Amino acid sequence: MTSPLLQRIDHVGYAVENLEEAIAYHADLYGMTVVHRETMERDGVREALLAIGESYIQLLEPLSEESPVARWMRRNGGPGVHHVGYGVADVAQTFEALKSRGVRVVDDHPRRGSRGCTIAFVHPRAAMGVLVELVEEPIP
Amino acid sequence: MTSPLLQRIDHVGYAVENLEEAIAYHADLYGMTVVHRETMERDGVREALLAIGESYIQLLEPLSEESPVARWMRRNGGPGVHHVGYGVADVAQTFEALKSRGVRVVDDHPRRGSRGCTIAFVHPRAAMGVLVELVEEPIP
Repeated sequence: MTSPLLQRIDHVGYAVENLEEAIAYHADLYGMTVVHRETMERDGVREALLAIGESYIQLLEPLSEESPVARWMRRNGGPGVHHVGYGVADVAQTFEALKSRGVRVVDDHPRRGSRGCTIAFVHPRAAMGVLVELVEEPIP
Repeated sequence: MTSPLLQRIDHVGYAVENLEEAIAYHADLYGMTVVHRETMERDGVREALLAIGESYIQLLEPLSEESPVARWMRRNGGPGVHHVGYGVADVAQTFEALKSRGVRVVDDHPRRGSRGCTIAFVHPRAAMGVLVELVEEPIP
């Protein structure tokens, strides 16, 4: 019944003003714990991953006012759900298939994401307003 | 490592203009299939669930211009990620615990959601801009 291409919701990315406050909020109310932290200079964010089932909540704090996540928060009127990450077996294949269908994308080619994953973003205008990230797990 | 309270991402809810177009888009690009359809008069939506791993993508089309989802789309400037549903073992217990901590909620008490689930919404102002739904599966 499940999609042959999309294996799971890898993560939902929340844009937050303050990473430590967002971590404390999720720990305090839901007992969620940080399983990974990383600063992604290219994406202009500090992030933390909180485990939930087979997925993560990804908390994203912009590194500067010019960070895309900071700009998104200004457009959005504050923090909120920034993007959704789908787990795929082969990000290059899936991404090329979408591009060959004329789907508008953000990245030209898949690139390195946090945790050593390979990622690529589909443009929200091509996905009914949802910024979609394809995520391939690193080979263990 | 995972939260003791939150078992999984039950679903991510996408507000869409046209349910059939959104279903066709996900089927066409990702091979996703509809596993459930329901009209929720109380919430003012027609919905379809698409399976992805242990989660769903929930597509929500407003029944009228006065539907909360229609109003959300006008504020948001179009379709997009409307809310995130967390799977919990006991929605009443989890919801009461949040309320007793002073967390602002949308529903007074848990109520029936689609698929016979019991659900309750936490207010986005209490959850860093994210409209959070707690979801308890029906007893099989």
